[in-house]
Amino acid sequence: VTLTIHPLRGIPEVEVGADLGGLLLASLDSGGLSLIDGDVVAITHKIVSKAEGAIREIDPEHEDAEYRRIVLDEAAEVIRVRGDLIIAKTAHGFICANAGVDRSNALPGTVVLLPRDPDRSAHRIRVALEKATGARIAVVVSDTFGRPWRRGLTDVAIGISGMEAVLDLKGTTDTTGRELNVTEVALVDELAAAADLVMGKAASIPAALIRGLAWQPGDGRATDLIRPAIEDMFR
Amino acid sequence: VTLTIHPLRGIPEVEVGADLGGLLLASLDSGGLSLIDGDVVAITHKIVSKAEGAIREIDPEHEDAEYRRIVLDEAAEVIRVRGDLIIAKTAHGFICANAGVDRSNALPGTVVLLPRDPDRSAHRIRVALEKATGARIAVVVSDTFGRPWRRGLTDVAIGISGMEAVLDLKGTTDTTGRELNVTEVALVDELAAAADLVMGKAASIPAALIRGLAWQPGDGRATDLIRPAIEDMFR
Repeated sequence: VTLTIHPLRGIPEVEVGADLGGLLLASLDSGGLSLIDGDVVAITHKIVSKAEGAIREIDPEHEDAEYRRIVLDEAAEVIRVRGDLIIAKTAHGFICANAGVDRSNALPGTVVLLPRDPDRSAHRIRVALEKATGARIAVVVSDTFGRPWRRGLTDVAIGISGMEAVLDLKGTTDTTGRELNVTEVALVDELAAAADLVMGKAASIPAALIRGLAWQPGDGRATDLIRPAIEDMFR
Repeated sequence: VTLTIHPLRGIPEVEVGADLGGLLLASLDSGGLSLIDGDVVAITHKIVSKAEGAIREIDPEHEDAEYRRIVLDEAAEVIRVRGDLIIAKTAHGFICANAGVDRSNALPGTVVLLPRDPDRSAHRIRVALEKATGARIAVVVSDTFGRPWRRGLTDVAIGISGMEAVLDLKGTTDTTGRELNVTEVALVDELAAAADLVMGKAASIPAALIRGLAWQPGDGRATDLIRPAIEDMFR
């Protein structure tokens, strides 16, 4: 099966209280697309946060100091600090730069936080899209994270609904009949990364439709991807 | 532009000295595909290693001990050890589990190493495919890596040819006119992750064609993605 990834264009600047389901459906419609069973809709968290009011005002006169204070407010635990960069664990448990507080693609005088409960956000959007279309889909809410040992950033899933976070291959065998030792694929992170290829950071394409992937419905959460502290060798 | 990702099927078990370019072209042909300018061919390193003879024999009687010895042979530096799991830096500089030595999808009595120079491998394959087709393409050789703080594995690029590893957005502005603070996207890692969605671990689909992405030709290397030790806060 061939996978297709469609950028969802024409979504305007999102305001607090915006109906994201309606905006996504209008974008799909204007692109000549309608949702079908098995589709995955990936959405950058930025528009989710804006719709939910997960933004903070910031005084342009003291922007850097205020930004740092908001980052520390959002940090449940500071993991590392180097210069202006704070690597922190968020209240959700994600470890990322600046506790997920973002200045780009924020309206002037504001910063954008992570949604309070991105899995719940994904669920709400999925329910809205499924109600409107009758299709059985999954939703992935993404953010852009760095990695400790690799330069550059990739998109990962911070909220999901409708599928499991991890594809567990335990018990399956490889082409030689040997049981696989790679058993857990972070499927939703791969979906977020794939969607980012068509979204781009500078273009105003905050969502994408991924069609053609075989996946099992499930009620996973993106927080399932958080490695328990006891397994963490690098904190 | 819509992105399409086609699995490349029908590639037989690869033996030492195999003509990977020829196998990929035959697979494309049997799938009704021919390469065009802008295509990206993603290939799991496993078949590259096998074609290049980057495999080691292993005595099934002492498999675990021999495996550990080979992992330590391949490790330029051991970063962490927990039980059977060794996190190591390879000679290339990649930090990954078991120094990239893999038992799954290896023929019985063998293990598969990383290619000695995966960027060079990608280059050779790209040149072969470009010569045969006249198309200007990029090649990504992938492996499956874990992440310190997130459960599950994703595919990343360990060898590339024809494009830059990182998409540098420095100087570009977001939708509000503000300069982006996320400036480096690990484009080739997102391509590897996207390709893995159609390849799968258990199915014998070792390659994929990604079509429709806008990218600039370049002579990047996957080793460009290795974060210099001096920037590394987590070693």
